[in-house]
Amino acid sequence: MKIAVDGMGGDHAPLEIVKGAVEASALTKHHIVLVGDETQIKAELKKYKYDSEKISVVHASEVISNDDAPVKAVRTKTDSSMVKGINLVKRGEAELFISAGNTGAIMAGGLFILGRIQGIDRPAIASTYPILGKGVSLLVDSGANAECKPNNLLEFATMGSIYMEKVLNVKQPTVGLVNIGTEETKGTTVIKAAHELLSKSRLHFIGNVEAREIPKGACDVVVCDGFVGNIILKLTEGLAWNILKLIKNKFTSGTISKVGALLLSGKLKELKSEFDYSEYGGAPILGVKGAVVKMHGSSNANAVKNTILKGIPYAETNVVQTIQNSVLELEEIIISE
Amino acid sequence: MKIAVDGMGGDHAPLEIVKGAVEASALTKHHIVLVGDETQIKAELKKYKYDSEKISVVHASEVISNDDAPVKAVRTKTDSSMVKGINLVKRGEAELFISAGNTGAIMAGGLFILGRIQGIDRPAIASTYPILGKGVSLLVDSGANAECKPNNLLEFATMGSIYMEKVLNVKQPTVGLVNIGTEETKGTTVIKAAHELLSKSRLHFIGNVEAREIPKGACDVVVCDGFVGNIILKLTEGLAWNILKLIKNKFTSGTISKVGALLLSGKLKELKSEFDYSEYGGAPILGVKGAVVKMHGSSNANAVKNTILKGIPYAETNVVQTIQNSVLELEEIIISE
Repeated sequence: MKIAVDGMGGDHAPLEIVKGAVEASALTKHHIVLVGDETQIKAELKKYKYDSEKISVVHASEVISNDDAPVKAVRTKTDSSMVKGINLVKRGEAELFISAGNTGAIMAGGLFILGRIQGIDRPAIASTYPILGKGVSLLVDSGANAECKPNNLLEFATMGSIYMEKVLNVKQPTVGLVNIGTEETKGTTVIKAAHELLSKSRLHFIGNVEAREIPKGACDVVVCDGFVGNIILKLTEGLAWNILKLIKNKFTSGTISKVGALLLSGKLKELKSEFDYSEYGGAPILGVKGAVVKMHGSSNANAVKNTILKGIPYAETNVVQTIQNSVLELEEIIISE
Repeated sequence: MKIAVDGMGGDHAPLEIVKGAVEASALTKHHIVLVGDETQIKAELKKYKYDSEKISVVHASEVISNDDAPVKAVRTKTDSSMVKGINLVKRGEAELFISAGNTGAIMAGGLFILGRIQGIDRPAIASTYPILGKGVSLLVDSGANAECKPNNLLEFATMGSIYMEKVLNVKQPTVGLVNIGTEETKGTTVIKAAHELLSKSRLHFIGNVEAREIPKGACDVVVCDGFVGNIILKLTEGLAWNILKLIKNKFTSGTISKVGALLLSGKLKELKSEFDYSEYGGAPILGVKGAVVKMHGSSNANAVKNTILKGIPYAETNVVQTIQNSVLELEEIIISE
């Protein structure tokens, strides 16, 4: 299998991207294709020892930056690392594409170059959400679609369940709909209609889930629109780091506390790593005809390595085809409304 | 001033309510009216020493429970503690009403008994949001209106700013609009239109605020619809308690850690209290013609005491009249669109 990695996307490209790719290469039999400025990438590669049969470079003369308007960038920067990388997947020259670049452009590239899976109205970003001490839930949509129709939420639930089962090895994943109360009469018009669709589906739908329960691992697949998903993801990030910072401050004030802090510093590090997104791999774009994974823009080599390694099962387990096969059933549910 | 307190609302009524009222009474010159079943409340009161000139009971034969449908309950249970308490405010026999009961019924009671402030389309619940180590922000709407129009968000911002300034003593409070990005082109149609209205207002509007920044105290007044507000409040609650629990677990495993945990237990308690909603008082219902404050359903005596004491400035500083005066200006902004 070939894994295409955007060598130019993200805050620390190409340095950390190349480093992470080299680290991943040592741990997988698969071939990694770094897409981007050949001179820069080769200069980085020179710093490391690696199996040159397993890493190659595809030159791209352009870069899509975070300031670029996504649709326009994908349409005009045809020699960018992002467009060229996604085209490798399109042409079957790679089975997976990974990028830490402009999220909107990754979505636009997936949509325009690979295309939607037939019957999926809105592809979504699925992000792993850390359940402290208990692994992860999958949050879909975590930011691609700010406004959704009820059928979109059903699609997110279906695609998320398939990904959770095939890639994260959770059998019969439970699905919860993010809402402001557990009763089915709660929420907006869209949420109430989505609740009805989900109830009719063959998914393991457990009903509404209040935000308070999400960090406790209320369900495997957490379904919401991209506005709410973005709030959940970013609030968690902000709050977790803030609490950890406050703990550190509290624990280093006063002499007695300093002794305690020293004794406990290992424990604090453990806690920090539970919130470290770089441990969990990237976020798949679900609903496009090919395996595309987005990484956090600030990804370091460790995050790149993990995203590559954890992305492999996404391409290998045929998630795209399984989603395609499930679409007919979704349409039956939606039309019966 | 007279403060009416719903003696029957909440998970621990009347026990904790009466206890909290007695504790508050010792700390304020104002008169507290406990509304509810006279026999039960008097039996509780007998347990304590208090100034009987400063606490009285108004009998109510009915109770609105959390299972009651709010609108129907307010319309039919006319002898309930909630309806009678709000009526005391309506008739000018109390200046403030506080309840830990059914939130929907408190809203419905405010709307039907007191009525909307003229020109305010949607009253909202304003909740204090703890900024670790730095006081509080005010989250409006935190759950009353799942679906909002742009003008509602402008109203929330205006009412929240007035409350923040008059009751929480923050001069020229900053206002932020919760969104999925800082650029004004981001978000839903409603959010984009609200951004435009807020930009034209005389509020201290600082633009969009990402969820990541909220726990860091990005702005004084955090504006969002009640769906998003509920997610923010409950996710914060769930995540904070979960992290604290995990810290406790981590710090009590292993002998060395136990020593550390002992040394640091005081610090952990400090941290816990920063997240303890019972310290911050209740959430005012803004936009109705009278001062009504809702408490958390699980409020203990300490929360009741704090809500009573912190509710006093809400009634004293004439927030309702100030909101009324600001409405004309809001209408100019909305109509100029």
